[in-house]
Amino acid sequence: MEIEIKIDPKLDLVFERATTIPVEKLWKGWTHPETLMKWFCPKPWRVTDCRINLRAGGEFFNVMEGPNGEKVDNHGCYLEVVENRKLVWTGMMTKGFRPAPANPMGFHFVGTILFNKTDKGTSYKAIVAHADEEGRKKHETMGFQEGWGKAFDQLVELMGGK
Amino acid sequence: MEIEIKIDPKLDLVFERATTIPVEKLWKGWTHPETLMKWFCPKPWRVTDCRINLRAGGEFFNVMEGPNGEKVDNHGCYLEVVENRKLVWTGMMTKGFRPAPANPMGFHFVGTILFNKTDKGTSYKAIVAHADEEGRKKHETMGFQEGWGKAFDQLVELMGGK
Repeated sequence: MEIEIKIDPKLDLVFERATTIPVEKLWKGWTHPETLMKWFCPKPWRVTDCRINLRAGGEFFNVMEGPNGEKVDNHGCYLEVVENRKLVWTGMMTKGFRPAPANPMGFHFVGTILFNKTDKGTSYKAIVAHADEEGRKKHETMGFQEGWGKAFDQLVELMGGK
Repeated sequence: MEIEIKIDPKLDLVFERATTIPVEKLWKGWTHPETLMKWFCPKPWRVTDCRINLRAGGEFFNVMEGPNGEKVDNHGCYLEVVENRKLVWTGMMTKGFRPAPANPMGFHFVGTILFNKTDKGTSYKAIVAHADEEGRKKHETMGFQEGWGKAFDQLVELMGGK
């Protein structure tokens, strides 16, 4: 049965794609640190460190580095893990559901990735929920669709699909 | 086996009591709306509405009303539910793990209640985690220990223990 989530267009950004890559490979891309590091950040940025403790309350940590020496540490916490189906995490908390300090970007979000198996591969949907419209707009203006699109293309290329 | 959680004294407030009330009755006090409404708020304040959807991502909502017509709506979300053992929730999110708007109190927290069965009843521990020291201090100064103590005394009285 397909997992669906109610979208609030004022607060949520949605990124959706159909791909020939099977759900198991996309799941590995999201949950295996060495694999995630290969695609998660649009080039020329790259992920230089990653820790994943794949359970509700477990740590999701990664470091993004830019071409001019920029460095961003992303501390997060998984909220829900349904193998090959659904992954929910947030930067509002660090491991063990500990509240995180304010985000320098000025907004926090909860990300949900839905992996739905299809005849041809996977229907992939990311829902990124914000606390208010201001946060959603800021994230949108920062280039959400372009960034998530480039990263996803890198994942598809890595897995040898289309 | 006893469930323990690492405490950070800079960020966490801890409320701890031993009681003759068995874990199952304390669990009911926390998870059954009509029962929770009878003790959750120190008198003369009272809880006038409550909704509980007891699963990770489920809603924890209650309304507190004061003697002078004050009214506070508390929207929250459960993060972890282990029957008769452990309950984790936060006001940082509303149902479905949706990020909540900023709290008018100026701080958010994640609350964990641990119920450990003992020979004489229950060892009860609440750990309330904040994002920063300022939040922890503010909550402490608002009368955290006194408030949680009064409410817990109401729960013990309701359940006919000591």
